[in-house]
Amino acid sequence: MPLSRTTRCNCIQISNRSVNPKSLEKLELIPASESCPRVEIIATMKKSGEKRCLNPESKAIKNLLKALRNERSKRSS
Amino acid sequence: MPLSRTTRCNCIQISNRSVNPKSLEKLELIPASESCPRVEIIATMKKSGEKRCLNPESKAIKNLLKALRNERSKRSS
Repeated sequence: MPLSRTTRCNCIQISNRSVNPKSLEKLELIPASESCPRVEIIATMKKSGEKRCLNPESKAIKNLLKALRNERSKRSS
Repeated sequence: MPLSRTTRCNCIQISNRSVNPKSLEKLELIPASESCPRVEIIATMKKSGEKRCLNPESKAIKNLLKALRNERSKRSS
């Protein structure tokens, strides 16, 4: 596999740490493609704007996706 | 609830249609916030660059998230 394929990925370091849904600005999921052979999940944090790559297979991301989907209009009050 | 809160959302129309993970450029999940009281999921399509808002509670999105997470390095061969 040529090196160039790997170097087009967005993520270098991938974290297994959990992310608080409330401090999350947005979450980007980028499917595997010709330019990067793996799924990438990039969390953008609210205050700092910091971007953090998350492990798609970690428990943390499963819980985060679940929390986001269940959030709905809870804050609409 | 003032109208301004609702008008800051990204999505106007929300689709329940399914999205093929292979034609997906990226998927953005935006948590509920002060500017928009609901979670928003925006799919950007590969060829057209078209953006489509998806229903976070639809079966289609559940399956899509599952497919993305299980995708891993299948295409790395």
